[in-house]
Amino acid sequence: MRYISFTDDPVTPPDEIFMKEALREAEKALEQDEVPIGAVIVSKGKIIGRGHNLTERLNDVTAHAEMQAFTAAAGYLGGKYLKDCTLYVTIEPCVMCAGASYWTQISRIVYGAEDEKRGFSKINSIITHPKTEITAGVMQQECATLIKDFFLKKRK
Amino acid sequence: MRYISFTDDPVTPPDEIFMKEALREAEKALEQDEVPIGAVIVSKGKIIGRGHNLTERLNDVTAHAEMQAFTAAAGYLGGKYLKDCTLYVTIEPCVMCAGASYWTQISRIVYGAEDEKRGFSKINSIITHPKTEITAGVMQQECATLIKDFFLKKRK
Repeated sequence: MRYISFTDDPVTPPDEIFMKEALREAEKALEQDEVPIGAVIVSKGKIIGRGHNLTERLNDVTAHAEMQAFTAAAGYLGGKYLKDCTLYVTIEPCVMCAGASYWTQISRIVYGAEDEKRGFSKINSIITHPKTEITAGVMQQECATLIKDFFLKKRK
Repeated sequence: MRYISFTDDPVTPPDEIFMKEALREAEKALEQDEVPIGAVIVSKGKIIGRGHNLTERLNDVTAHAEMQAFTAAAGYLGGKYLKDCTLYVTIEPCVMCAGASYWTQISRIVYGAEDEKRGFSKINSIITHPKTEITAGVMQQECATLIKDFFLKKRK
């Protein structure tokens, strides 16, 4: 487990520090020819869970970055709930992942680029827990470019 | 893996045969003091995946009966999609599980009792895949009683 605290970098805004880590996870997915989406879960300035999309490798549509990160973070904390945690994810969570976030009671979700097709907010903004604060658009460009390039190459 | 074909029982309607199997899964959850919800996935008259709620034991809010059954069925089929399959689940899927069902492209979902709080249909009926047919209320009473008794005992 890699720890990163806010104080390591007093200039870069904290959300960008952690979104960069989520992007690193997305790149791990890309290296395995998976849809490049990555996520980290942060508690008290530390990363306590990581995940990247593994739907092809695991042959499992539920193996989204966020789901892996939720399971990892709960395992680290030894409790099911992620009440004082923030999820950083490169792409807006889908309905499944946002629905899972409800059960975790996570404090905050920060995402990069929107998912215009299956992003939860397109279907219903009340899918997440009422206590979960949402921040959208952190490093949007970088997050979107990674996935757009991936699908462009796939279509060639 | 236990196989059950329609022809084993010409009298009981097929949906009830498989819902009884989902109820058996729910009872397995109950034996472990988990919220008693069970699921099976059926393809061509055979059960190809089973699951019951294990959120406490696995310390993981994503460990719902349906999620376990999706993963098991995909593992059995060797493909991510469950296009010609039916999910039988004792309680209406939550948003997370209905969101997962979208990704599986499952043909049909049959559930027993409604979940008035987090049932997907209360939030948005278009959460499931447009090709997924929904049947509600199969063995509703039995499915609901199991879970109501569980929570009544918990509150005592």
